[in-house]
Amino acid sequence: MTSRIAHPLLQSRVMDAEAAAALIAPGTTVGMSGFTGAGYPKAVPQALARRIEAAHAAGDPFAISVWTGASTGPELDGALAKAKGIDFRLPYNSDPIAREQINRGEMNYFDMHLSQVAPMAWQGFLGPLDTALVEVTAILPDGSLVPASSVGNNKTWLDRAGQVILEVNRWQNPALEGMHDIYYGTALPPHRVPIPLVRADDRIGQPTFRCDPARVVAIVETDTPDRNLPFKPADDCAQRIAGHLMEFFAHEVAQGRLPENLLPLQSGVGNIANAVLTGLIDSPFENMTAYTEVLQDGMLDLLTSGKLRMASSTAFSLSPEAAHALNADMDRYRERIILRPQEISNHPELIRRLGCIAMNGMIEADIYGNVNSTHVMGSAIQNGIGGSGDFARNAYISIFMAPSTAKGGAISTIVPQVSHVDHINQDVQVIVTEQGLADLRGLAPRQRACLIIETCVHPRYRDRLADYYERALRDSFGKHSPSLLSEALAWHQKFIATGHM
Amino acid sequence: MTSRIAHPLLQSRVMDAEAAAALIAPGTTVGMSGFTGAGYPKAVPQALARRIEAAHAAGDPFAISVWTGASTGPELDGALAKAKGIDFRLPYNSDPIAREQINRGEMNYFDMHLSQVAPMAWQGFLGPLDTALVEVTAILPDGSLVPASSVGNNKTWLDRAGQVILEVNRWQNPALEGMHDIYYGTALPPHRVPIPLVRADDRIGQPTFRCDPARVVAIVETDTPDRNLPFKPADDCAQRIAGHLMEFFAHEVAQGRLPENLLPLQSGVGNIANAVLTGLIDSPFENMTAYTEVLQDGMLDLLTSGKLRMASSTAFSLSPEAAHALNADMDRYRERIILRPQEISNHPELIRRLGCIAMNGMIEADIYGNVNSTHVMGSAIQNGIGGSGDFARNAYISIFMAPSTAKGGAISTIVPQVSHVDHINQDVQVIVTEQGLADLRGLAPRQRACLIIETCVHPRYRDRLADYYERALRDSFGKHSPSLLSEALAWHQKFIATGHM
Repeated sequence: MTSRIAHPLLQSRVMDAEAAAALIAPGTTVGMSGFTGAGYPKAVPQALARRIEAAHAAGDPFAISVWTGASTGPELDGALAKAKGIDFRLPYNSDPIAREQINRGEMNYFDMHLSQVAPMAWQGFLGPLDTALVEVTAILPDGSLVPASSVGNNKTWLDRAGQVILEVNRWQNPALEGMHDIYYGTALPPHRVPIPLVRADDRIGQPTFRCDPARVVAIVETDTPDRNLPFKPADDCAQRIAGHLMEFFAHEVAQGRLPENLLPLQSGVGNIANAVLTGLIDSPFENMTAYTEVLQDGMLDLLTSGKLRMASSTAFSLSPEAAHALNADMDRYRERIILRPQEISNHPELIRRLGCIAMNGMIEADIYGNVNSTHVMGSAIQNGIGGSGDFARNAYISIFMAPSTAKGGAISTIVPQVSHVDHINQDVQVIVTEQGLADLRGLAPRQRACLIIETCVHPRYRDRLADYYERALRDSFGKHSPSLLSEALAWHQKFIATGHM
Repeated sequence: MTSRIAHPLLQSRVMDAEAAAALIAPGTTVGMSGFTGAGYPKAVPQALARRIEAAHAAGDPFAISVWTGASTGPELDGALAKAKGIDFRLPYNSDPIAREQINRGEMNYFDMHLSQVAPMAWQGFLGPLDTALVEVTAILPDGSLVPASSVGNNKTWLDRAGQVILEVNRWQNPALEGMHDIYYGTALPPHRVPIPLVRADDRIGQPTFRCDPARVVAIVETDTPDRNLPFKPADDCAQRIAGHLMEFFAHEVAQGRLPENLLPLQSGVGNIANAVLTGLIDSPFENMTAYTEVLQDGMLDLLTSGKLRMASSTAFSLSPEAAHALNADMDRYRERIILRPQEISNHPELIRRLGCIAMNGMIEADIYGNVNSTHVMGSAIQNGIGGSGDFARNAYISIFMAPSTAKGGAISTIVPQVSHVDHINQDVQVIVTEQGLADLRGLAPRQRACLIIETCVHPRYRDRLADYYERALRDSFGKHSPSLLSEALAWHQKFIATGHM
């Protein structure tokens, strides 16, 4: 077993996780690696959680601020939240324990556009970054770092932090080396210049992170898999959503509004996204590309099928089986996958230039096409806005999709008024449920309402929604976007009171 | 009086407005010039309105779709709306007659991000553009067109339309020639490339519009001023808002978070915006620049003072006095003002690259920092989102400002939940009322709520809002963004029922 730490000075910084965790002081801010369960540090956060628990047992306060790329794994958010060790969290969370604390009002969570995390960290108003805690695949002889299965904000954490702690994870495939493209051309205004990327497959940076070895205070060696969750096969509902989208794409190509190989695809994760990507395998579209923030199983299958020429993202989010398949064939995939910092994978400049087709899930939409991606019943956070705002506003076509009902039919995905807005109607061009697809482009609010009620709503809720809209049309204060304020949120109120809308 | 039509073939196309209006068929789409009351066609729309009224009197239906840059003047939106001649309107309206029709449900209005109008027109889903009706300052010997006091979407209308009708307005100063910068490098994906603008004062295009003379079917000569509205002097409330902002800017410079000459300024129009710009005249900041969509009186004063080095925008919006001053000294101003197409003045790529300081007005904000810029009581449109979304999301600092009350105190600008969302809390970093300034950057929702209630709310409403928030903190479904759905919109309901919140 050869060492993955090829820099002599840095070999001397190897220690165990406890010793490394002891270098993180209470009340400080730690920028950690990790994006959708890939490439997050797995040992030091757990050691830190034990230290925090011990401090709390002794009656001493101990909490830190945690910045990451996006979501991580139970060994990071889960362990630290369980220890009540996080008092401020950004920019995204999907951990159930942390979520519960946030929704009990115990943890402050700053939910951000993922493209803005790095630039805002540089702007300075978030305060100093004390420690970077970053998982890497290997350290090269010159001290540069081979990234792991996600890039996220690691470049920025390594550049900005007062001290650097590295986890070198032997589980990460050494053949990842060369897959990453780390762009070092960002700056604060007035020194920003155009980002020289014009195709999804352009490489504009270097394969490794720069890191001054003198700032590395600890290295911990690990051998632990990413949080790779089992793959859920697409159900009938997801298949039908995918079917509506395939039809829409074919129509747009036929109308001459999309090229035959479509445009760079962005896709959220999950069951429906996978069904759409699987649907594309059997589609007539060839030579596609992806410019997205996460590569899930479906994207890998699409690459394997040959229909997808290449994929650019900032992280993987795979099932254990797909991770195994990727690792077994990494040399081949490396030629067709590029992992970038999330400020580049999600950059508005690049998303608009490339003209991405953005496909994201949602919690609910209203009859005017406003979308809620984050808040259950208006007040409880689910995960966060993530990159959906970066992509939706700048996409060539911005698509939101979800089953027309949730909780076994107790919740209608289409409501009179969303209880929280993440995507304003201007940024929502297509809404798809298993019931149908509403192409809202170029429609005024009342036109949108009629189409959404007709096309997307579950039959169980359709008449009630149509009735609401009709009465709003008659009794609303203004009739540009007719609404009845006393009923606009009544469906949510009813759900809270009775458990169904 | 020399002709402003220097192209021989085009001289033969001169006709009166009635004859030109006769070339516009019912049911067609007309792309007109005009942005904030500057550079809109002034004769043909009125002739067309008369034609429409005659058709209606004869029992014949006659309406058109109207696309513009942004708002226009009474001779366009007012006259056509009065004739009930518009059945679809995009992307922005501030005309009172049209607004009333929209809010009665009689006109379909598609309210768009101003940066997206031109690219979406090219995308094709808006349908064909039958006629371009564009005011210009002059026609050069080679047939190229000298733009007037706004650029808006004119380049796109001239490129896309089946036929072109020009109004050559003698009122427009011939010395405007050379002020404009018309960029011809845009394209649809996958052919988009970086826009080569890195400073607010970069010129990346040409001073005139290209236009194939063969497509020009009519030219009408006019001599009519723009809709230049009287200047309202800043009241005490506006002064206090400006004062809070000056303090904030000075603080940011002192903290090293803004350069000493600030960053390119974007400013909405109106009383408060003018007070802020006037405040900057007496500020310590030198050598400032503006990258904005509209140049109002305050911006001109700031240029005249020498504090503002140059200003880039897509249109003027001046008082009659300021327009007179500008015209009297156009040769000098031309060196320091650039007018661009609105897809460039408002381009997300450029706004983020330059790091604009965005300052926009609002109708209301809620305790979590979501902003409503468009809908009165959630359903009646005021004007439209305009460029505020382009700037707010991509700005270096995104600021929204308004007096803390409206309608003589009957309305609180800060409410439990906004009745409509145009700017999600992620895009709202600073809220200013005359009561104070809330710097929301880096704060979680509950932190934002406390700060906004403490800082921005009028004393008349503060206790009630604090009481609402306290009860929400106790009784809300989730406590990430605590809310009481039964009361979230109750302030608006009360206003509709009683005339005060």
